[in-house]
Amino acid sequence: MTSAYEFAQQNRDRFLQQWMDLVSIPSVGTDPARAADTRRAADWIAEDMRRIGLENIEILPTGGNPAVYADWLNAGPNAPTVLIYAHYDVQPAELSDGWDSEPFTPTLRDGKLYGRGVADDKSNIILTLKAAEALFASDEGCPVNLKFLFEGEEESGSPNLPEFVRSHRDRLSADMAIIADGGLDKADEPIIIYAMRGIMAFEVRITGPRTDLHSGVHGGSVHNPAQVIAEIVAQLHDANGRVTVPGFYDDVEIISAEESAQLRKHDVTPEEWDHGVGAPQAWGEPEYAIVERTGARPTLEINGISGGYAGDGFKTVIPSQAKAKISCRLVANQKPDKIYDLVTDYIRKITPPTVTVEFEKFGDGYPVRVPLDSNIVQALSRAFKLHWPDAEVVYKRSGGSVPIIAVFQEELKLPCVPLGFALSDSGIHGPNEHYHLDLFYKGVDTTIRFLQEIAAGAK
Amino acid sequence: MTSAYEFAQQNRDRFLQQWMDLVSIPSVGTDPARAADTRRAADWIAEDMRRIGLENIEILPTGGNPAVYADWLNAGPNAPTVLIYAHYDVQPAELSDGWDSEPFTPTLRDGKLYGRGVADDKSNIILTLKAAEALFASDEGCPVNLKFLFEGEEESGSPNLPEFVRSHRDRLSADMAIIADGGLDKADEPIIIYAMRGIMAFEVRITGPRTDLHSGVHGGSVHNPAQVIAEIVAQLHDANGRVTVPGFYDDVEIISAEESAQLRKHDVTPEEWDHGVGAPQAWGEPEYAIVERTGARPTLEINGISGGYAGDGFKTVIPSQAKAKISCRLVANQKPDKIYDLVTDYIRKITPPTVTVEFEKFGDGYPVRVPLDSNIVQALSRAFKLHWPDAEVVYKRSGGSVPIIAVFQEELKLPCVPLGFALSDSGIHGPNEHYHLDLFYKGVDTTIRFLQEIAAGAK
Repeated sequence: MTSAYEFAQQNRDRFLQQWMDLVSIPSVGTDPARAADTRRAADWIAEDMRRIGLENIEILPTGGNPAVYADWLNAGPNAPTVLIYAHYDVQPAELSDGWDSEPFTPTLRDGKLYGRGVADDKSNIILTLKAAEALFASDEGCPVNLKFLFEGEEESGSPNLPEFVRSHRDRLSADMAIIADGGLDKADEPIIIYAMRGIMAFEVRITGPRTDLHSGVHGGSVHNPAQVIAEIVAQLHDANGRVTVPGFYDDVEIISAEESAQLRKHDVTPEEWDHGVGAPQAWGEPEYAIVERTGARPTLEINGISGGYAGDGFKTVIPSQAKAKISCRLVANQKPDKIYDLVTDYIRKITPPTVTVEFEKFGDGYPVRVPLDSNIVQALSRAFKLHWPDAEVVYKRSGGSVPIIAVFQEELKLPCVPLGFALSDSGIHGPNEHYHLDLFYKGVDTTIRFLQEIAAGAK
Repeated sequence: MTSAYEFAQQNRDRFLQQWMDLVSIPSVGTDPARAADTRRAADWIAEDMRRIGLENIEILPTGGNPAVYADWLNAGPNAPTVLIYAHYDVQPAELSDGWDSEPFTPTLRDGKLYGRGVADDKSNIILTLKAAEALFASDEGCPVNLKFLFEGEEESGSPNLPEFVRSHRDRLSADMAIIADGGLDKADEPIIIYAMRGIMAFEVRITGPRTDLHSGVHGGSVHNPAQVIAEIVAQLHDANGRVTVPGFYDDVEIISAEESAQLRKHDVTPEEWDHGVGAPQAWGEPEYAIVERTGARPTLEINGISGGYAGDGFKTVIPSQAKAKISCRLVANQKPDKIYDLVTDYIRKITPPTVTVEFEKFGDGYPVRVPLDSNIVQALSRAFKLHWPDAEVVYKRSGGSVPIIAVFQEELKLPCVPLGFALSDSGIHGPNEHYHLDLFYKGVDTTIRFLQEIAAGAK
């Protein structure tokens, strides 16, 4: 008798070796000089999929780097189907960026594996494939149908993913999705992110005089666009940090007292505030805790404001233009398009007649919220409890937007949760990216259990 | 019998040749490769001063390019003493900048002289020296005492001039000063600028979080410095364009009804507005005409606002810092230091406790106003009327700041007027800088008469 756990235990050295093999392929998706390597990573993955018994393996064109697809649908029509997403492209890295060892020569030190992509996101490619392999090889077998989609453009902002998902809707149809690109804040704190904020971003440009003017010659007679943009931005929040745009909060789902209480248990402590932010005081809607302001409430944020001279010293100019880059974080059930219309209509309304205003819309993404009592959340919770017996599972709303998750939710109507076991201080995107080996093995076991619990929960 | 006018008439070709000789010396004061040429221009001027009969000629060190000084004090102790300022350094110029002829090979075309510095400011060096020469050579003689100060660093912002003037106060003492670095807007409109705004410039920097933050993770809990700078800037003017800083207008000299009426005769027309500004609507204190808003009223202008991401697309950041570059144009009798204190105290007061604020002061300059009934203004007016018999003399307040004039006014307590006959579209600082020859000769005559009228007015 061999259980999936036993198989994973017996093969742990090979799993590590395979992880190192994949990390040693410098699949920097944004670097044309690495195009062949990026493709090689896709081939490596397809080959391993073949080896472990996945079917319908395809390297699919996307308009950019290809996506690798495979499935295994032999658990039967009554078993749930789980779509697993991860990405095989990595951020650029050079030894000279401050690495202590060659970034594409995976190196073991102090129980950690170092190398570009060990965490983001090759760990998750390996541990989801290895969890599947262990289930396939075990006596109990794999209790769920599986579909894998590994893309090669996440570090470029997944420009082709929405269209790809739309045009492969049938192939990707499933009951739920695991977005294997997550992580942990602390090694002893299993976390389930059940909600993520959406986003809607745009630029507002104010034009006054036809060209930049001399502020001596014209100052006092011209409504300075740098002043106008400030006057507009200043009208977007009230004194309590509430967004003043009419209708902005209309579709916001108000969290329950129970959920609020649970969130507040893990509110930001003064030490965490000082460490992570360090501003003199917190700010925002006073009736909400910080963890709620950043997770359960929508925002309107000024990501950039600019106009006129920004260099050293000064220049006596009245700029012709000034602009602000604004993004709104959205929560269920706000819709990006509707919020864009509300905000830009309001800005148009408060723009004075001394200037003209124009807008440019950038990306957007829907907010995501998976019910706490859904199978996918409950199954992950039980898997965590088994493998982190001494810890309390933290249920968290993420303030950030994960456009990929929003795409899966919107296009495929799937409940999604992120999964991953890299710690938030793993040096992702920076030098010396690393991963704790014990968390990797625990991650494989937890993923095995997660899939088993999904099957159990579906019964 | 030879009058000064006759002498000037008889020597006009030589005057032109000397002007061309001086222009052919590429005295680009900011260019180390042109240091010898810059010095050669100073030597050329000193030599011409010697030739025409000026005395006490000295090439004086300043810490940068030297200043050329000379005087002629033989009009007697009862005659007024006139200090004449101009500058011999010029802006850089290359044929490839768009010139139709070599910038340092002065070229006559269509009644105009082309070359770098023909207007700014070598025309004024030549025409003030030639006016003096003509008066010295005339039978009537020169009726005023003269002091010339030609500096070589105006295009670098005259960094050494304030200290130079302070340390040569006695040598430069006079009854009035002609700042021969002015010009005309139109050939048929003699103009007397009797007031110039001063300036006080600084930067305000707002710091919130210790580093730039992810707006997803922290948005909603942090008072975004880009928003704070907007909220501060938006509080600096009321809805009527009036500066809200308490005490800001306390020292402002209110213009008389007569002066207001005279200024309004030359208010900005809709065509001029459209041509020069082109904003949808004018703005500012409604009880003042545009010409008053820009000449007789102080301002607080946002020369630059910046914070967060300003490149293409967007970046979901909460910036750690944001800043605004602000300058105030001042009118008599506002004092730059007092205004700095008032404005920064007010900003400190309205800065919320969620951020910290700091200031950096840049340059400043006092406002200048010469009484309309002063000898220097009246003498120039009579000289204009004689040589522009068909035109009405325009009395103008300049909105811009001329720090050099402010230095002469503050350090030497002299009434100053700018003088010059280059048209405002002469290509100063750009390619194809040029000067109408007829305006040059008219300028020499007007300057001769101006000095004579100063003597007449002093009796």
